[in-house]
Amino acid sequence: MRAMLLGRFQPFHLGHARVVEHALEAYEGLVLIIGSATESYTYANPFTGGERHLMIQRTLEDMEARQVSIVSVPDIHRYGVYASHVADLAPPFDVVLSNKELIRYIFEKEGYQVESTPVFKRQTYAGTEVRRRMATGEDWHSLVPDGVAEVVDRIGGAERVKGLYAIERSST
Amino acid sequence: MRAMLLGRFQPFHLGHARVVEHALEAYEGLVLIIGSATESYTYANPFTGGERHLMIQRTLEDMEARQVSIVSVPDIHRYGVYASHVADLAPPFDVVLSNKELIRYIFEKEGYQVESTPVFKRQTYAGTEVRRRMATGEDWHSLVPDGVAEVVDRIGGAERVKGLYAIERSST
Amino acid sequence: MRAMLLGRFQPFHLGHARVVEHALEAYEGLVLIIGSATESYTYANPFTGGERHLMIQRTLEDMEARQVSIVSVPDIHRYGVYASHVADLAPPFDVVLSNKELIRYIFEKEGYQVESTPVFKRQTYAGTEVRRRMATGEDWHSLVPDGVAEVVDRIGGAERVKGLYAIERSST
Amino acid sequence: MRAMLLGRFQPFHLGHARVVEHALEAYEGLVLIIGSATESYTYANPFTGGERHLMIQRTLEDMEARQVSIVSVPDIHRYGVYASHVADLAPPFDVVLSNKELIRYIFEKEGYQVESTPVFKRQTYAGTEVRRRMATGEDWHSLVPDGVAEVVDRIGGAERVKGLYAIERSST
Amino acid sequence: MRAMLLGRFQPFHLGHARVVEHALEAYEGLVLIIGSATESYTYANPFTGGERHLMIQRTLEDMEARQVSIVSVPDIHRYGVYASHVADLAPPFDVVLSNKELIRYIFEKEGYQVESTPVFKRQTYAGTEVRRRMATGEDWHSLVPDGVAEVVDRIGGAERVKGLYAIERSST
Amino acid sequence: MRAMLLGRFQPFHLGHARVVEHALEAYEGLVLIIGSATESYTYANPFTGGERHLMIQRTLEDMEARQVSIVSVPDIHRYGVYASHVADLAPPFDVVLSNKELIRYIFEKEGYQVESTPVFKRQTYAGTEVRRRMATGEDWHSLVPDGVAEVVDRIGGAERVKGLYAIERSST
Repeated sequence: MRAMLLGRFQPFHLGHARVVEHALEAYEGLVLIIGSATESYTYANPFTGGERHLMIQRTLEDMEARQVSIVSVPDIHRYGVYASHVADLAPPFDVVLSNKELIRYIFEKEGYQVESTPVFKRQTYAGTEVRRRMATGEDWHSLVPDGVAEVVDRIGGAERVKGLYAIERSST
Repeated sequence: MRAMLLGRFQPFHLGHARVVEHALEAYEGLVLIIGSATESYTYANPFTGGERHLMIQRTLEDMEARQVSIVSVPDIHRYGVYASHVADLAPPFDVVLSNKELIRYIFEKEGYQVESTPVFKRQTYAGTEVRRRMATGEDWHSLVPDGVAEVVDRIGGAERVKGLYAIERSST
Repeated sequence: MRAMLLGRFQPFHLGHARVVEHALEAYEGLVLIIGSATESYTYANPFTGGERHLMIQRTLEDMEARQVSIVSVPDIHRYGVYASHVADLAPPFDVVLSNKELIRYIFEKEGYQVESTPVFKRQTYAGTEVRRRMATGEDWHSLVPDGVAEVVDRIGGAERVKGLYAIERSST
Repeated sequence: MRAMLLGRFQPFHLGHARVVEHALEAYEGLVLIIGSATESYTYANPFTGGERHLMIQRTLEDMEARQVSIVSVPDIHRYGVYASHVADLAPPFDVVLSNKELIRYIFEKEGYQVESTPVFKRQTYAGTEVRRRMATGEDWHSLVPDGVAEVVDRIGGAERVKGLYAIERSST
Repeated sequence: MRAMLLGRFQPFHLGHARVVEHALEAYEGLVLIIGSATESYTYANPFTGGERHLMIQRTLEDMEARQVSIVSVPDIHRYGVYASHVADLAPPFDVVLSNKELIRYIFEKEGYQVESTPVFKRQTYAGTEVRRRMATGEDWHSLVPDGVAEVVDRIGGAERVKGLYAIERSST
Repeated sequence: MRAMLLGRFQPFHLGHARVVEHALEAYEGLVLIIGSATESYTYANPFTGGERHLMIQRTLEDMEARQVSIVSVPDIHRYGVYASHVADLAPPFDVVLSNKELIRYIFEKEGYQVESTPVFKRQTYAGTEVRRRMATGEDWHSLVPDGVAEVVDRIGGAERVKGLYAIERSST
């Protein structure tokens, strides 16, 4: 059986890496879906789909995780067809790994098996926390895999997040 | 420098595999773009984006081609912004490998370097020829990598192409 | 079990009416999908979704066919998610009635049962024949239910089709 | 003259049923537009277009309200063309029944006559109140027609709304 | 009364310039709609919306035609709402100048007055003829206003058209 | 060098007029982009793209500002390709005039030069202030050019804004 893990990965962090490890032990393969692939340059979604693809690819190479497909999926803004939209763009999968209720609903409705994933320090290993630290200049390197940190540093990602945070705060 | 190769890969065949080999010798890495990712179930585009992703991933595993990113890109139906659309979804690349004039125009306009690729028996190793043979029941296995053949056989792909060919012919 | 019948109904004709009668005998209810709902003012698709809805509603009233839901569905231009798109907009159905291979593929793939429909003088009771007669000024009233003829006459539909045919011919 | 009533009908309730009764007394026919037809699986819009179509169809059958067309209309996210978008998908109508200022503006601008509808216990017979009761487990059956209650119960609709409410609350 | 003239202007030629002169004599002002504004880099539509805007603006400056609004309008692929789509993006107009039957239908349906325009050597002063000459290397400068010729020359437009023609011919 | 100024211009006010004056002194020409061109009939975006086009055109005529191109650009909801989207629809420009951080990011990323504009009583000459005064019935005529005031008065714009403000307030 092959598993699927869906996230926005803004950015991919050590909590995600743990779930990937878990999935590769429990299943034959993993499809990793980069959701909201065309969203970027907002505080909630600072990185482009391409940047996120690269961060994840680097990390999987370092993990020697070869049975993983990375697939970018733009939003379709229709929950009623979202599962079908993902299935159309992704290699086949049998099990959806998710702790999000909405994802569970949407994929169970289409007949997929849905499993919870082990949670690893949820408050710390979270995209919101990584972005908050980037915005405030605190340490965020320790929350992400080395491959992600390297890509973020190269593209000036932390500065971008700081700028986007300032934009968002000033517009409220 | 990293190269980019764009195709519909309906399906990925041995001609494509040669270009990948060439690219991996000449460049540090390769971004392989599956174009028209949401097109499927027509004679010209029989396979879904997800199916094509799987065919290519299998082949690259067999080739032990690790420096390749596979990225699905839906059509945006605007040549004027297509290069930007691809760049938004793909890891960064410097050189576009293409023998298609339109691709050359569109990416040169945005400042990319564009290079031709060596052509390998163009009449035989061509998507149109592979699909024609699937439609007529001739041998097509010899035109595609083993990983592709295996996926096509598992999903009943040749039968699908035969059916889609009949649909197209009857509607003209 | 409830059946689903999908067509463009440009316009709804006596052949369609026969299939509806057949479906209401064989199944508990029928969902009638007006496909390509936003296409109009071309020779192939002369009538708007709203006009087609009215033609069909009138006919069903005359047939006293009450167990029928009329649902307009715009094209989504992605065969891979089309079945899900229809299911999202339509009341539930179990069986798809269709003689078109592509419809069969698309819905069987999603687990629907697909049945053929009895064909009733296919050359005559066909949308293309009705439109051809409208374009040439031949009798078309005898090919459609009274409710359809009445609506077409009220909106000047035959003249519109004649005009659209002239446009199409002059542009080739 | 034919009237048009536009709503999201999440879900259709007894207040809506009263307006339908009123409209059928005052006008020759009614077009009932299910707005935001492709929205679903959020707390504000829990039910799919297809589910809402079925709820309304059942209710109209029980009311023996035959002069009503049910038409699903997806959002177009452009108020400037919304009236034209509705007119394209719906059978013709002359009068728009609405108490919403924005709807009045948009359709008056296009030359439609706009009339207010009698309001029937606005605080109670309201979609927000029905959904609130579903979310909290209070009685909601008494606020909707029997046909609606039956459909909601069959699809586990109240549980879905409860779940979606929890999702929304946890994400703020 | 203000007039509206709609075209793709691929490119704007002396026939168009004549119609503009005529319109400015007969009406108080003119709205010039650049249709299919996002189409470019095909043989039928070689120039981007921005390039066409510039060509027309230069020409109007040379003509000292100040009462003209230039408005780019992307296709909406729905004839049923096209008139409303144009009206939403354009300054108000009363009369539509067109010799195309489809445009007449679509705007008359929405209550606009539609007038024919004087035709000036239709075979010669035509976008298809200008593009054909660009493709074959024949004289095309004499068919377009100086402002257009200057812009086309600066962007290498004739070479682009020649290239796009070759692409189109080779793909058939 | 040609400059570009991007705004929603809801409505165009005297602060905008000052920036236009400044730009025409400092650069050879100006492209004025009406952003969010298809947004209208909300309190934040009350006027249609066409209405805004007319307001600006009138003002530029009064200013005798001839080297200005007015270009309406619908939103594309993808910051990653927005610069390319604008460049596709607009005549060429070299410098982007903007005090908005996000605009700076997006265009600098694509290689454009970005310059700040002189600010002229930012609290007063602001779209939000103009709309607030329209909503409350205070004097707003003194904040906009005469050409804008004239168009707003003719279309009943202040009343529309007042109505839209009431709608927004009641829905919160």
